[in-house]
Amino acid sequence: MSTDRNADGIDETVAVDAERLRSDLERNAEFGAIDAEEGRGRTVLTGTEPNRRARDYLVDRLEDAGLGVSVDAVGNVVGTWTPDSADPDAAPVAAGSHLDSVPEGGIFDGPLGVYAAIEAVRTLQESDVEPTRPVAVVSFTEEEGTRFGGGMLGSSVATGYRSVEDALAATNDEGTTLEDALAEIGYRGEGRLEAGEWDAFLELHVEQDTRLEERGIPVGVVSTITGIVHATARFVGEADHAGTTAMADRTDALAAASEFVLDVERAGREFAMESGTAVATVGQSHVRPNATNVVPGAVELGVDVRDVEAATMDRLLERARRCLARLEADRGVETDLEVELEVEPAPMSERCRGALAAGADAAGVESTSLHSGAAHDAMYVSRVTDAGMLFAPSEDGLSHTPREWTDWEDCATATRVLAGAIARLAGE
Amino acid sequence: MSTDRNADGIDETVAVDAERLRSDLERNAEFGAIDAEEGRGRTVLTGTEPNRRARDYLVDRLEDAGLGVSVDAVGNVVGTWTPDSADPDAAPVAAGSHLDSVPEGGIFDGPLGVYAAIEAVRTLQESDVEPTRPVAVVSFTEEEGTRFGGGMLGSSVATGYRSVEDALAATNDEGTTLEDALAEIGYRGEGRLEAGEWDAFLELHVEQDTRLEERGIPVGVVSTITGIVHATARFVGEADHAGTTAMADRTDALAAASEFVLDVERAGREFAMESGTAVATVGQSHVRPNATNVVPGAVELGVDVRDVEAATMDRLLERARRCLARLEADRGVETDLEVELEVEPAPMSERCRGALAAGADAAGVESTSLHSGAAHDAMYVSRVTDAGMLFAPSEDGLSHTPREWTDWEDCATATRVLAGAIARLAGE
Repeated sequence: MSTDRNADGIDETVAVDAERLRSDLERNAEFGAIDAEEGRGRTVLTGTEPNRRARDYLVDRLEDAGLGVSVDAVGNVVGTWTPDSADPDAAPVAAGSHLDSVPEGGIFDGPLGVYAAIEAVRTLQESDVEPTRPVAVVSFTEEEGTRFGGGMLGSSVATGYRSVEDALAATNDEGTTLEDALAEIGYRGEGRLEAGEWDAFLELHVEQDTRLEERGIPVGVVSTITGIVHATARFVGEADHAGTTAMADRTDALAAASEFVLDVERAGREFAMESGTAVATVGQSHVRPNATNVVPGAVELGVDVRDVEAATMDRLLERARRCLARLEADRGVETDLEVELEVEPAPMSERCRGALAAGADAAGVESTSLHSGAAHDAMYVSRVTDAGMLFAPSEDGLSHTPREWTDWEDCATATRVLAGAIARLAGE
Repeated sequence: MSTDRNADGIDETVAVDAERLRSDLERNAEFGAIDAEEGRGRTVLTGTEPNRRARDYLVDRLEDAGLGVSVDAVGNVVGTWTPDSADPDAAPVAAGSHLDSVPEGGIFDGPLGVYAAIEAVRTLQESDVEPTRPVAVVSFTEEEGTRFGGGMLGSSVATGYRSVEDALAATNDEGTTLEDALAEIGYRGEGRLEAGEWDAFLELHVEQDTRLEERGIPVGVVSTITGIVHATARFVGEADHAGTTAMADRTDALAAASEFVLDVERAGREFAMESGTAVATVGQSHVRPNATNVVPGAVELGVDVRDVEAATMDRLLERARRCLARLEADRGVETDLEVELEVEPAPMSERCRGALAAGADAAGVESTSLHSGAAHDAMYVSRVTDAGMLFAPSEDGLSHTPREWTDWEDCATATRVLAGAIARLAGE
């Protein structure tokens, strides 16, 4: 490897082993692999046999690289490298992501961030970089929230936003607790990973959007992870016989709800023109009694509102409430808006963004700053320590599908930037 | 009873026994009775124990009145009264309705028409009317279509629109065939009731609407039963991450479907202003993947269109197709409209309408002409012989709920009109 040094004193071309990274990701892709018409898919739900095998392989790779491995009570796995150059008591720099997937998800969402972190450590071990802090590789439990609800379970526990007891008591559809599911696969560890004790945390993830691809830029440094509000909008009209109830005598809950769907879309478009980052979606709809020959009596809609500015989200919700009030007046329906999830936007730390941008510059890799519309473990971690995120391009922006794809070369490029940023943050 | 005779030579005041009618209806209401917070409900599904008990009671009442009872292959029950005055080979005048209910339905929808027909026969037997034709009382199987799909099963078989074999092979949710379900309760009879051999058919039913109540008129003579089209409108967009997909990059199937829902409502209102009878409804909606944080990728809507004029229904469907074409152009969704049920409007025969109106006049009961927006067994029967329908007022227009209600006095009044009409049609 090159030993040229730049102004930071860090190796300019951190020469990650692209084949070693690809080999790990392809091996990981075998666990829970599914037949897909197009692309490569996997189903790795927390506490299942594919999840055990994926975790076992991760632990092997961490140990092969000489990292000390620990597993906390909710199954978060951490491998720590304490080089001779480091103060073993210094707060470590951590990097990682998650290994669980959505059902029939892709092979990069999560694993890229975990195996890029291992590859970064191996690269640093093989370089002449001499970190003064330990470097930790982390895999958080149940980021997707597919089997034990909510999402980002492991990082919410590691940041103190959720108690170990509460998380272990979470149940899946069959009533199995997370605790039993983890014990079954041998990953119900002890204690609680404390992310607040890290000096910094970096997460490499696939973008799940087309901005990098469209602009032909190989890595994106995340500015802010948007806040999220999930709300349920309810409409109560009157269920009536579709044949015998004259048009003028109806209080049709679905027609009222349809006006709301369109107003949420219109508001999202208007606010997006203003901020560039706002989105507003009605993704879920339940109609009662939901029979073709009955005028709908009640509708529940699931509303998703996101932006990098909390004030914009507040204004979008206020707009939704005004729309409901208008529908009550115009159509005689009863309405209600219940906020069920409210997460503040999470700006990434200047220090981590700087390290990632500098890592890209040093590697001669073009980078750009962009926000994340999706939630990630880094969102929780950013509330307790400096956090940063790096995106690699997603082909056609697809994710949560076997068609999710990131070129192997892009995986390696982003890993190179990650390794450079870790080296910077871990000091020399 | 009075023996005054009017110009038709028919007894002016056919003195039905209101208490005997009420007793039959209240006894029938016990079969499958449910606890209801308000009103009186019952669940009488074809081939269940409550259905067996309701049928047994009906057969007893028919036999008590001296009618010869037969049960056909699909469980249609017919009792025939052949008075001494009648030619036993003459085509009978039939009257009736159905005994099955929707789940947690009311106690009048169906049974009123069956027990009013029996009461009419008993009244005629006790009067000095001397019919020249036999009079038949009929209870059709599975009018509601709750357990064995589609609806109006018994009348569709009795009119040759559906084969006995096909109907008997219909299965419920547990895979039980109608044939086995009927055999289980002892009502898998022989042969096929042939409604086309009747001279005429009359059905008394609750209105399921508020027109009679609002106008304070005790009986309505049905002009036409509306035609019905059931169609599925499909919208295919692109399922995308609600957080990472910018508003401008979406092809939201639910937003497109919402425009369609509102256009169907608007069209229904416009056509109703023109015709007074048209209705258009989107009663059913299925969204995929139906997750709050995913932009909807596909939506299926169940559309119900009705009018007394087939041409109006055609125009409503054409309008729906134009709306879909516009949404394809404006929103980039793929759409499709599949007609799944298409029933022509069924005008009632002049002869039957005249007999019902004359029956009302003779009884000194005010009547009005109105259409039926709901389908009834008389719809099928009208295609093979003269058919007529009579409506009794529904309190608040409610049906298919325990809150369905028709005053006992209104039941008796309508039965009096029915008896007079049967007397007229059966000749003297």
